Amino acid sequence: MADNHSLELLIQSLRRLPGVGVKSAQRMAFHLLQHDREGAVQLARALEHAAGSVKHCSLCHTFTEDELCPTCRDPRRDHSQLCVVETPADQAAMERTGAYKGLYFVLMGKLSPLDGVGPRDIGLQKLFDRISSEADLREVILATNFTAEGETTAHVIAQALKGRGVQVTRLARGVPVGSELEYVDLGTIAHALVDRR
Amino acid sequence: MADNHSLELLIQSLRRLPGVGVKSAQRMAFHLLQHDREGAVQLARALEHAAGSVKHCSLCHTFTEDELCPTCRDPRRDHSQLCVVETPADQAAMERTGAYKGLYFVLMGKLSPLDGVGPRDIGLQKLFDRISSEADLREVILATNFTAEGETTAHVIAQALKGRGVQVTRLARGVPVGSELEYVDLGTIAHALVDRR
Repeated sequence: MADNHSLELLIQSLRRLPGVGVKSAQRMAFHLLQHDREGAVQLARALEHAAGSVKHCSLCHTFTEDELCPTCRDPRRDHSQLCVVETPADQAAMERTGAYKGLYFVLMGKLSPLDGVGPRDIGLQKLFDRISSEADLREVILATNFTAEGETTAHVIAQALKGRGVQVTRLARGVPVGSELEYVDLGTIAHALVDRR
Repeated sequence: MADNHSLELLIQSLRRLPGVGVKSAQRMAFHLLQHDREGAVQLARALEHAAGSVKHCSLCHTFTEDELCPTCRDPRRDHSQLCVVETPADQAAMERTGAYKGLYFVLMGKLSPLDGVGPRDIGLQKLFDRISSEADLREVILATNFTAEGETTAHVIAQALKGRGVQVTRLARGVPVGSELEYVDLGTIAHALVDRR
């Protein structure tokens, strides 16, 4: 294999994917070359096309191929609410619920001081500009993840929005639908108890 | 995300990689587009190039970009020994030991009747042709994996080579170097006991 430059380069390139080590990269490369060359070519084209055409929505910062994403273009969305999420996947999860009709802002990351990710890296200034520019905005819903980094991000945003005349809310913490108390962690039960209604 | 065709296509294409489900594919796509577009383009080129240029060595069947792989081209290799392995990764592991100077045949798979993989699918006929054509060959070393499928493959090859005037050997089974007996499985200890020397 030592002199097989294309194969080595393919394995090295596959390792740039998150969560892929040298063994997985080898397995992927062998699989594509042995059983699915059509898939390899398709993946190559999809990568090239996406890298060239996908950009950020100028309003909500999510991935889109146009100046504005479909959600920001939709005239039926409620401009009084803005939901802040970490990633497009989180936005998609919110959309699938069908319970939210407002606007979004996608941070494309979260504050993580330990990894050197500060407010500038996730474009918080862009969020604040957006909030200032939406005249009808009454509520900002913080839907960052309920991890240490997500909570920190929500806290920093909430602090920065104080006194801007906009209501800041956070998704409710509580017992997940369909779960049994016996198997729910104590922190969640404690929150659910405090926030009982 | 629904109307974001390039992104959707990229996620679908990434799912063709072995061991990658929809969540991993999403994570990979987001990572490449957000943090490593250069990596995306590099991977695209590596895929396209490998899919177009990597073929099988006409002698040993491993991946190579030329008619013959570097090992088969090497005049210093010992033509009296032929080592049969399942994959190029297994061949690379054998080479790294530096303990083997003979030739190889890479099956590019293993017999697996449950998955519908028979002798024709892994090119056993090509192996037998190769063995017939090597005039100096005295020993075939079966180095397929010590799994159920690998053992079956070794057994089928050994049976087929009976009466061909070539010695057929199998890698020794035994206790791995550096391991403590207490933690070695019983089958391995039993084999090591029977094959003691």
